[in-house]
Amino acid sequence: MDARTTIPERMRASELLAQDSLTVGDRPVPVPAADEVLIRVASVGVCGSDTHYFTHGRIGPFVVEQPLVLGHEASGVIVAVGEGVDAARVGSRVSIEPQRACRVCEQCKKGAYNLCPEMQFFATPPIDGAFAEYVTIQSDYAHDIPDSVSAHAAALMEPLSVGIWACQKAGVTAGSRVLIAGAGPIGLVTAQVARAFGATEIIITDISEERLAVAAQHGATRALHASESVEEMTVDAFIDASGAGPAIRAGIPAVKPAGRIVLVGLGADELTLPVNLLQNRELWLTGVFRYANTWPLAIELVAAGRVNLDALVTHTFGLDDVENALMAGRIPGALKAIVEPWR
Amino acid sequence: MDARTTIPERMRASELLAQDSLTVGDRPVPVPAADEVLIRVASVGVCGSDTHYFTHGRIGPFVVEQPLVLGHEASGVIVAVGEGVDAARVGSRVSIEPQRACRVCEQCKKGAYNLCPEMQFFATPPIDGAFAEYVTIQSDYAHDIPDSVSAHAAALMEPLSVGIWACQKAGVTAGSRVLIAGAGPIGLVTAQVARAFGATEIIITDISEERLAVAAQHGATRALHASESVEEMTVDAFIDASGAGPAIRAGIPAVKPAGRIVLVGLGADELTLPVNLLQNRELWLTGVFRYANTWPLAIELVAAGRVNLDALVTHTFGLDDVENALMAGRIPGALKAIVEPWR
Amino acid sequence: MDARTTIPERMRASELLAQDSLTVGDRPVPVPAADEVLIRVASVGVCGSDTHYFTHGRIGPFVVEQPLVLGHEASGVIVAVGEGVDAARVGSRVSIEPQRACRVCEQCKKGAYNLCPEMQFFATPPIDGAFAEYVTIQSDYAHDIPDSVSAHAAALMEPLSVGIWACQKAGVTAGSRVLIAGAGPIGLVTAQVARAFGATEIIITDISEERLAVAAQHGATRALHASESVEEMTVDAFIDASGAGPAIRAGIPAVKPAGRIVLVGLGADELTLPVNLLQNRELWLTGVFRYANTWPLAIELVAAGRVNLDALVTHTFGLDDVENALMAGRIPGALKAIVEPWR
Amino acid sequence: MDARTTIPERMRASELLAQDSLTVGDRPVPVPAADEVLIRVASVGVCGSDTHYFTHGRIGPFVVEQPLVLGHEASGVIVAVGEGVDAARVGSRVSIEPQRACRVCEQCKKGAYNLCPEMQFFATPPIDGAFAEYVTIQSDYAHDIPDSVSAHAAALMEPLSVGIWACQKAGVTAGSRVLIAGAGPIGLVTAQVARAFGATEIIITDISEERLAVAAQHGATRALHASESVEEMTVDAFIDASGAGPAIRAGIPAVKPAGRIVLVGLGADELTLPVNLLQNRELWLTGVFRYANTWPLAIELVAAGRVNLDALVTHTFGLDDVENALMAGRIPGALKAIVEPWR
Repeated sequence: MDARTTIPERMRASELLAQDSLTVGDRPVPVPAADEVLIRVASVGVCGSDTHYFTHGRIGPFVVEQPLVLGHEASGVIVAVGEGVDAARVGSRVSIEPQRACRVCEQCKKGAYNLCPEMQFFATPPIDGAFAEYVTIQSDYAHDIPDSVSAHAAALMEPLSVGIWACQKAGVTAGSRVLIAGAGPIGLVTAQVARAFGATEIIITDISEERLAVAAQHGATRALHASESVEEMTVDAFIDASGAGPAIRAGIPAVKPAGRIVLVGLGADELTLPVNLLQNRELWLTGVFRYANTWPLAIELVAAGRVNLDALVTHTFGLDDVENALMAGRIPGALKAIVEPWR
Repeated sequence: MDARTTIPERMRASELLAQDSLTVGDRPVPVPAADEVLIRVASVGVCGSDTHYFTHGRIGPFVVEQPLVLGHEASGVIVAVGEGVDAARVGSRVSIEPQRACRVCEQCKKGAYNLCPEMQFFATPPIDGAFAEYVTIQSDYAHDIPDSVSAHAAALMEPLSVGIWACQKAGVTAGSRVLIAGAGPIGLVTAQVARAFGATEIIITDISEERLAVAAQHGATRALHASESVEEMTVDAFIDASGAGPAIRAGIPAVKPAGRIVLVGLGADELTLPVNLLQNRELWLTGVFRYANTWPLAIELVAAGRVNLDALVTHTFGLDDVENALMAGRIPGALKAIVEPWR
Repeated sequence: MDARTTIPERMRASELLAQDSLTVGDRPVPVPAADEVLIRVASVGVCGSDTHYFTHGRIGPFVVEQPLVLGHEASGVIVAVGEGVDAARVGSRVSIEPQRACRVCEQCKKGAYNLCPEMQFFATPPIDGAFAEYVTIQSDYAHDIPDSVSAHAAALMEPLSVGIWACQKAGVTAGSRVLIAGAGPIGLVTAQVARAFGATEIIITDISEERLAVAAQHGATRALHASESVEEMTVDAFIDASGAGPAIRAGIPAVKPAGRIVLVGLGADELTLPVNLLQNRELWLTGVFRYANTWPLAIELVAAGRVNLDALVTHTFGLDDVENALMAGRIPGALKAIVEPWR
Repeated sequence: MDARTTIPERMRASELLAQDSLTVGDRPVPVPAADEVLIRVASVGVCGSDTHYFTHGRIGPFVVEQPLVLGHEASGVIVAVGEGVDAARVGSRVSIEPQRACRVCEQCKKGAYNLCPEMQFFATPPIDGAFAEYVTIQSDYAHDIPDSVSAHAAALMEPLSVGIWACQKAGVTAGSRVLIAGAGPIGLVTAQVARAFGATEIIITDISEERLAVAAQHGATRALHASESVEEMTVDAFIDASGAGPAIRAGIPAVKPAGRIVLVGLGADELTLPVNLLQNRELWLTGVFRYANTWPLAIELVAAGRVNLDALVTHTFGLDDVENALMAGRIPGALKAIVEPWR
């Protein structure tokens, strides 16, 4: 039996033509190359970077110069395989790790493939993303998920990976006290991860009371308005998921000697930081750039019920409705919007 | 007001005179030296080493040659302080870290004070332990506990520390698969710790069906009779809490490449090990010798409800009944016996 | 211009037909596949494993069942490239990392590709090695070497990598005291690496006075006959490069608390070890299985003059003389024999 | 024989009375308390902080409000011991670790005693330093030095410790490429340490051609004027020993992905840093605050000839001449001035 029997020739894909200009295009269904699988997309989460490409037409040096398919938080079902891939994979429900690393550079061979200079990442010009009916990815980046994990949750393994990577860099472990700035999807999922890593105090701050109101459901032991001082908190780790300079500057003095500061949120290129404090307390400050080797743990945490990704999903949209999905952040109570390209 | 006002001159203490020979002696209540506190003992857990001293009169090179007070898992209330200790500590409920390190050797100054060659440890000849109405300890080794923590649980911070130290050396973290050999108090508390550290698979083995029956209540996701093969488990870490050569040899092949093996249980001095497996898989094998800097985390885990020590306590005894306490392991269903010296 | 212009159709290769049976066969020159390079072999070091295949026809489960080309310590010059490889590489002098990892498994993606279960390693049945005029390897495993590095030294980056990997696992750093058992090529190169890592005391033991006599030239600060006790040495790390049970058992008591033991030499499958010592001192014991990501450092150390590999070479042989090369270890004063397949 | 026989009742000490006001005072020779030793001071290095106290009367919150003895880089000979110290120590030549940690706080017990909130540090108001004929220190902070180490070198174990601590935090190891900003005594000693740790490329920058001229003697493989770009250096670690904002900002882009930045030099309280670069490359940035557990390694490196501290000493002064010693930095060619209080 040919696994590709029922696969159509053409598919629909949401294309960003330029700033503020979206359309649904008709494209050939991609053919999986050697080592690749073809996936019928089930769910795709909307990330702030997707929205930023839509509203600005660029992120830093990455400019939309040809039709770009957005979306990099994706799940689906394998419907065909390329040469060298076990045909038994057809039918598997998978979470997509949305990247292709070169596998041969120093960083890849050391296991830090997120730092690969040749990385091709979904929805980053000129690489297309997953707001489409079908996508291809190398087989090992299509991670099997158990039946108990929903398609939405499988898509959200990507932001969960960000939270895992942040907590790993922050050294979060059993008994940690963690301060998280920003109660958006990344902040909330990071709080869940911190709890799963054994942290016993998880303080989250935001400027939105609405967001703070749900923080406790995501593992926060305390939710504070960003205007309140956190200086006396003496936390082991401070993870910024806001990208806001004032939040970062407010959080650093809360970190105890030898503690860590991890910058996840994207904001200004430069920031004025209290270097004397970093020196006197021997704090470690770093940032995260995506993630590496996080999917197995992400899937394990969700499957074991330690992290609840479905709780983040507040809205779903079809492919004709991507613009509304991208702007869903404006809807009161919205956390994570999902695009279902098959609708 | 003199904090020592109500402290008697004399006290009762259980003394091991020699192998199989226990008595309750009358001793002066110790006076706290500089930096020390005097503690009225509340609860003292019975450890296998206490029983071993009673039944053998020695452990390796440590021989009972003068009356020895056993017991090193202890809690109580501070009733007096020595010079240089804040008098406000009087009245504090505390868990005792039962040791005095030299604080000046290479190991102490590096933070590995458990490896201090000058260590004086409770209930190790000729250092007396805590089966007595009162004991002294340096103030920083008397750790404050919150009201929510019972006296029994406060005493059991000591075996909990063993489990914490083992899990730290084993690199247990979120999503870990852990194999634990031995479902006695140490194995069970280690399972609880592994769960608190985020492990999602915790397999415990024992030769006692009775012990295996309670393992699930202590975090085990699977409980297996020691006669079953664990070779295909592919765990990240194997912690031996049995001290049994066959269990150790059975567990090693279950560890995946680059995984860790931590020997907690005491058994034979020498053991025949599959070094080719250690080499081919680049496994790391080590052992634990007590613990260092574990009390703050131990208290935090209990206070936060991540570990339940009270669930380990099955029997309590008074000071006149220490022999029965020491032999309580023979009682069907017994896990941890507690001596309450004030009874 | 076709880089393959001058490459012949056929080549000579030393073939191990079975135990004790070597011949020089005529084979087609291999054609580099995509991502591969074709290398004209310059120098190939003889390793104890090569000799073992010759004298025993097998190593453990790996049996010579078809003609096998031995040799895995190799250097040469790139003479052709496969698809996807920059043609500018032709003419490059290279050191060969003699392995092909799968690049997609958990271990590969974590950077521990030496533990890849799909690893194909030179001169390990049924994978051919480098005692041949030409070999192919994936381009990223053919590491450029500077002009200052000899072809022999380029070949010996392989045993140097074993020494690097051992010292890294042993935690050797500035000021370390290191005990090395075995003053053969691996022991000596490990001593050189330890010195390059900043170790200030490097004690080497052997049963051969002849080998001990040259140890000082390779970084050893002290050379001891294996019959002398090393127990009082209190070293930070003990690296066994002998594979001899008595040497391993003698070395362990020399390791100070929290120190490390790294087993490099291959010997018996099982060994009786003092587990009580491992426990009481919290020693870490592990083994090495080849290496990962060591070539850049190996080349840097040789290029910077921190390690001298040419000093290990005592004999060279042509392709017709491989049997003598394999048995060169019996020649008094022999350290490392080199096969030059182009002779 | 009483070891104190020849110790006078009174001694001379250089006292900083206030900004720009030094005198030589007459003080009682201190009596060693329990666990302390009395040291006849041999050599004391002048640090930039000593000069800063002299020229400004303060460093940040630390204000000279009573006569203060400066000097914290000191060596000498033990001439008496306090209670509990082995009298055999009398006569030992020692290097002084100029601090008293509390030994009981969380940081001390973890081995990070440099972060002890109760730390009492030499020459930091109101704690006196070593520009005096005699000082006391706890016995374990008086480190024995071998005969081969000069009194000057023994004094300079303190700045050497800064360099060691910086290189340890920077992860410098064999084959590292290290960029060091600032070729003053700390920069130069750090270059020496980097070499001793096995670094093979050590690039040092400064604004003084005079200082750069001697850098090669201290391990630098390249010395660059600070006006030259270092952006393309792609180093593993960048250590700032200048405290200059422009140097720090220039150095960060030179660090390769996953590399480290260690701020040693003291400068502005706040600094504008390229956080996007820290994030995109996942760089780690930290600072050093003194050092912990560095003396044994410092002494070993000097004794083994891996670091040459005598090469830093350019001028010596007597106790009457401390003002000139403090201002010696202005002398062309000056690196490190030494005060000899016994002169």
